Amino acid sequence: MSDDPRMVRRRVRRWPQDGETGDHVAVEEPLEIRVEDAPIAVTMRTPGADRELAAGFLYTEGILEDAADLIALEHLPGDAAANTVVARVAGGVEAHAAALARATRELHATSACGICGKVSLDRIEILSTVAVQPLEPDPAVLIQLPALLRAEQPAFRATGGMHGAALVTPAGALEVAREDIGRHNAVDKVLGWRLLADQVPVPDRILVVSGRAGFEIVQKARVAGVPVIAAMGAASSLAIDLALSANICLIGFLRPTSFTRYS
Amino acid sequence: MSDDPRMVRRRVRRWPQDGETGDHVAVEEPLEIRVEDAPIAVTMRTPGADRELAAGFLYTEGILEDAADLIALEHLPGDAAANTVVARVAGGVEAHAAALARATRELHATSACGICGKVSLDRIEILSTVAVQPLEPDPAVLIQLPALLRAEQPAFRATGGMHGAALVTPAGALEVAREDIGRHNAVDKVLGWRLLADQVPVPDRILVVSGRAGFEIVQKARVAGVPVIAAMGAASSLAIDLALSANICLIGFLRPTSFTRYS
Repeated sequence: MSDDPRMVRRRVRRWPQDGETGDHVAVEEPLEIRVEDAPIAVTMRTPGADRELAAGFLYTEGILEDAADLIALEHLPGDAAANTVVARVAGGVEAHAAALARATRELHATSACGICGKVSLDRIEILSTVAVQPLEPDPAVLIQLPALLRAEQPAFRATGGMHGAALVTPAGALEVAREDIGRHNAVDKVLGWRLLADQVPVPDRILVVSGRAGFEIVQKARVAGVPVIAAMGAASSLAIDLALSANICLIGFLRPTSFTRYS
Repeated sequence: MSDDPRMVRRRVRRWPQDGETGDHVAVEEPLEIRVEDAPIAVTMRTPGADRELAAGFLYTEGILEDAADLIALEHLPGDAAANTVVARVAGGVEAHAAALARATRELHATSACGICGKVSLDRIEILSTVAVQPLEPDPAVLIQLPALLRAEQPAFRATGGMHGAALVTPAGALEVAREDIGRHNAVDKVLGWRLLADQVPVPDRILVVSGRAGFEIVQKARVAGVPVIAAMGAASSLAIDLALSANICLIGFLRPTSFTRYS
């Protein structure tokens, strides 16, 4: 456990017990994502799948279209903190100048946590060249997903403070699951895993998320062509509107015995 | 309920029941925050306390020091969507050029949701001129805060998808509570309420939050000089480190019968 980069021990006092003890807490550290020499974003993330996170972020922000766009993706050499990942892209920055300019401009209009550059539904239409192929999920599969995801969340079980995301097949088989203190990062990690495996878009999977479904979660799924999102928590108004307009089946409040489908 | 800007009705199907019904969902819409003519940030927020949110954001980002810096803070005239708030500041942008340049540079280095411009603990020392006056919270008060906050979360009760934040006195009396789909926005709203009331810093209050305590929540409290943070959820490694270095008492996993104090 002590070698797991996702968690560290901190001293705590548990009231009403007496005395100090140790507890596992979720690690939160900044990760800078660069394309060639240009810093694109800094995200507060949980270490451990940094390449997947960077790949997924660059993919869902429209900077990378697929694995062929990537020449290399590695931590910055000599950075002992391992908090910077550098993407070398086919054709160099020049070949991606338009996408980088757009992303930088939009990220520039954004801000810190809880603050989002995806300011209009119009942007999605620009980013998304992939049509979502509608997929009708099986309720018997859906209600198994909370237990399936939870089984893949060891860091959540240890810390109580970590989001999870997973891709599963329509039959309910797990493909990949990742954890992060940031809900969006967990989604970027599983989509980045697909990109690094040269398997994007993602037309035949259910995206399972441990928390709520906000606009940005649906947007990321939309860019990747994911047809079903199953969230343990609630969906927002904008998330519902985007999902409906994109033919994405959006499920909320997913439980072992029930769920809500936004229709 | 239909006049509450924080929620709207959407059509849903609840499995395993048959048929379609209506449900309240949390509203998520972008808010652009401007200083004079300069766009500073766009946040995905729940409408309803936009002036407080903008004031709190500009305060916790170090652009406003107190109410004297504000000449006016209003929605953009003629913007029917009411999704832009403009701050007119004493001395104009020139008088705040350094803070705006720093904030813009840092926000520029940030990105969308879950992504954070607060890339180093060093920044806090720059932002914070207010020393935190340590306050020892009364456990008997703390354990009452979950019920107190929940009573102030009507939109959460209706939608299941909304964060809450509140300021309470050391004796447990509620001062102000706000809701938002973004955890950080809820905190900005209560701190912005204080700024608009010309009552910053906030040296003698407990900041109560319905979710987890990440770095950025502690950072906002630190800028405002809040001595105690009580979170229903877990705290991250960086949140704990910042709180300890700033003499902020950080409480997590707050329940009616127990809590964890990071020490």
